[in-house]
Amino acid sequence: MKDFKVTPWEVSGSIDYEKLIKQFGTSRIDEKLTERLERTCGSLHPMLQRGFFFSHRDLNLILDDYEKGKGFFLYTGRKPSKGMHIGHMVPLTLTKWLQDKFKCNLYIEITDDEGFLHKRDYTWSDVQNAATENIADIAALGFDPDRTFIFKDSEYIKNMYPLLLRAAKKITGSTVKAVFGFDDSTNIGLSMYPAIQTIPSMFEKKRCLIPCAIDQDNYWRIQRDIAEGLGFHKTSAIHSRFLPPLQGVEGKMSSSAGAQTAILLTDDEKQVKKKINKYAFSGGKDTVEEHRKLGGDPTIDVPFQWLSIMFEGDDKKLAQIREDYTSGKILSGEMKGILIEKVNEFLVDHRTRKENAEVKKMMYSGKLAKKMWDTIHE
Amino acid sequence: MKDFKVTPWEVSGSIDYEKLIKQFGTSRIDEKLTERLERTCGSLHPMLQRGFFFSHRDLNLILDDYEKGKGFFLYTGRKPSKGMHIGHMVPLTLTKWLQDKFKCNLYIEITDDEGFLHKRDYTWSDVQNAATENIADIAALGFDPDRTFIFKDSEYIKNMYPLLLRAAKKITGSTVKAVFGFDDSTNIGLSMYPAIQTIPSMFEKKRCLIPCAIDQDNYWRIQRDIAEGLGFHKTSAIHSRFLPPLQGVEGKMSSSAGAQTAILLTDDEKQVKKKINKYAFSGGKDTVEEHRKLGGDPTIDVPFQWLSIMFEGDDKKLAQIREDYTSGKILSGEMKGILIEKVNEFLVDHRTRKENAEVKKMMYSGKLAKKMWDTIHE
Repeated sequence: MKDFKVTPWEVSGSIDYEKLIKQFGTSRIDEKLTERLERTCGSLHPMLQRGFFFSHRDLNLILDDYEKGKGFFLYTGRKPSKGMHIGHMVPLTLTKWLQDKFKCNLYIEITDDEGFLHKRDYTWSDVQNAATENIADIAALGFDPDRTFIFKDSEYIKNMYPLLLRAAKKITGSTVKAVFGFDDSTNIGLSMYPAIQTIPSMFEKKRCLIPCAIDQDNYWRIQRDIAEGLGFHKTSAIHSRFLPPLQGVEGKMSSSAGAQTAILLTDDEKQVKKKINKYAFSGGKDTVEEHRKLGGDPTIDVPFQWLSIMFEGDDKKLAQIREDYTSGKILSGEMKGILIEKVNEFLVDHRTRKENAEVKKMMYSGKLAKKMWDTIHE
Repeated sequence: MKDFKVTPWEVSGSIDYEKLIKQFGTSRIDEKLTERLERTCGSLHPMLQRGFFFSHRDLNLILDDYEKGKGFFLYTGRKPSKGMHIGHMVPLTLTKWLQDKFKCNLYIEITDDEGFLHKRDYTWSDVQNAATENIADIAALGFDPDRTFIFKDSEYIKNMYPLLLRAAKKITGSTVKAVFGFDDSTNIGLSMYPAIQTIPSMFEKKRCLIPCAIDQDNYWRIQRDIAEGLGFHKTSAIHSRFLPPLQGVEGKMSSSAGAQTAILLTDDEKQVKKKINKYAFSGGKDTVEEHRKLGGDPTIDVPFQWLSIMFEGDDKKLAQIREDYTSGKILSGEMKGILIEKVNEFLVDHRTRKENAEVKKMMYSGKLAKKMWDTIHE
């Protein structure tokens, strides 16, 4: 059995998600919980139904509070970098669905400070350019512009500062070393940063729900250590697996690992076609004859996995594709063709939505944004 | 010979200032330099003339730049705490004199963040109340309201943030541990704080001059390590000795060490009289007879030291007092009486100036303040 590694800075190897649940001390999203979610929401997003979001912390308490009329809020974020890819759309897609279902506030933190502190060669203007582009991509998901507040840390820092100091005062150097693998050669900005990422989870006195990939859980463990002492709730979270890179079902998609592992949101139709045809790892057999006879393996076929996670919402269609692939009726090239079409549809839609996105409202002039700019968090 | 300790957090023992110059790697303010200052300014402040400011870094470069017409700016600050005392007036008094002489900009950083992070039991509202009071006391010195910008870190953090990130990125955990004695149990806010204190020294592309007590030199050593890499000048500094506490010429005056070591700016005439009479360490002899015969020792007499440092600007009068004390003509009680009168005069004046201080102009609406609120430092 291969080794795997899951930290906020590195995801590699063949990930044993059951083991991660034990290792991180989170809970499995079991049938009882998905049934409860379905009852409450009237339907279930495919990412939940198909177990792509597989782990949680205190999601049951979120539903309790919702049913009692107390409500809750959503929080997600992004460290700006060039080249957002479709893997980044995963938690955002579920977040959008949750906001639609629960009509709740959503805070999206753009961590330009972290982006700058983390990358040696990144200048401030690099980070700002990336942030502007990323914000437009995020806003393209069409969040409720009066219930969504997208902010850059560098612009909102003053409003967060008193609460940030209270949080930072409760976190020691030992803690961030243990949780993030920092050491004495880490710059003092980066060492302080984890405190900043906890703050939006305390923007309201309600409970907070964070949809994120499981590698981000570390931040929330620190939040859960300090939040109650500061007069807020421990945050809840709902954790996804990783969208696999084109090369195979191990690790996670990454723009920095080279453009051929990921489909970027800016890739045009030809690039998508070329990347998937050239790089996508196939579960098919070496020859057509063999494939027709023995069939393909959808569990290691990246195009099928992507369809299952992101691009084929219809259960019946997906089941048919799986059956036809396993039986050998669908060839690897045909499977890739199905994905190419779906991805290109998605990207064309995305770019149209991006052009029309209500960025200013979500950042400055919407109902929630306005209220937030008038608030100093203490 | 006794041990002594000088760090930003502790000053104790009988301080060997010559040794400190070697230990810290600063330079003595020698006769040549004081003569140059006197030529440039037309006069010399008693604190300079009498050697109370005794050490510097690159003061000669400041004078070079001034003579070349490039100019320079001043920077000082205060960590808010209850009970400012007359010792706190020392660097501010020289700063005021320097601004008058050189007509230069002055930045005064009120480190409410540091104050909060540093004291376990301090609440945010404690710090804010102390800051408001401290700012009024500082503004009372009568700085030029169009050339002075007083700001609280918590209010100005957004304007400093990009530059702060650039600075923090250049400072490692090892450095702040070595320089400030931090360890892994230090909270991550306090560990990051030294970066914040360097920022105002980079508010302009000119050279910065910092008048401060020698125990603050550590901050500026870090600044001098990183400033040029960020495109700014290494800061210059001019260092004072410590105003001795009432109890004797060792250590430094401190409000937290107990009210009886310090004269607070809020002490009334009776309190001043009582404190000095009761606690001020005297260089006089045990009996009047002995004193008349042998005389007092002004070098260990706290009232005389205070007169020399702060309260008797007239050299002739001071020399007379010294002579009369050494000869036994002035008794210890009389020496205390002279000081009591001077201190009370100072405090009455101070409180009048405090009431009329142009706080708002220095913080928000003066010429320099307005410009600063429109500036994001990168």
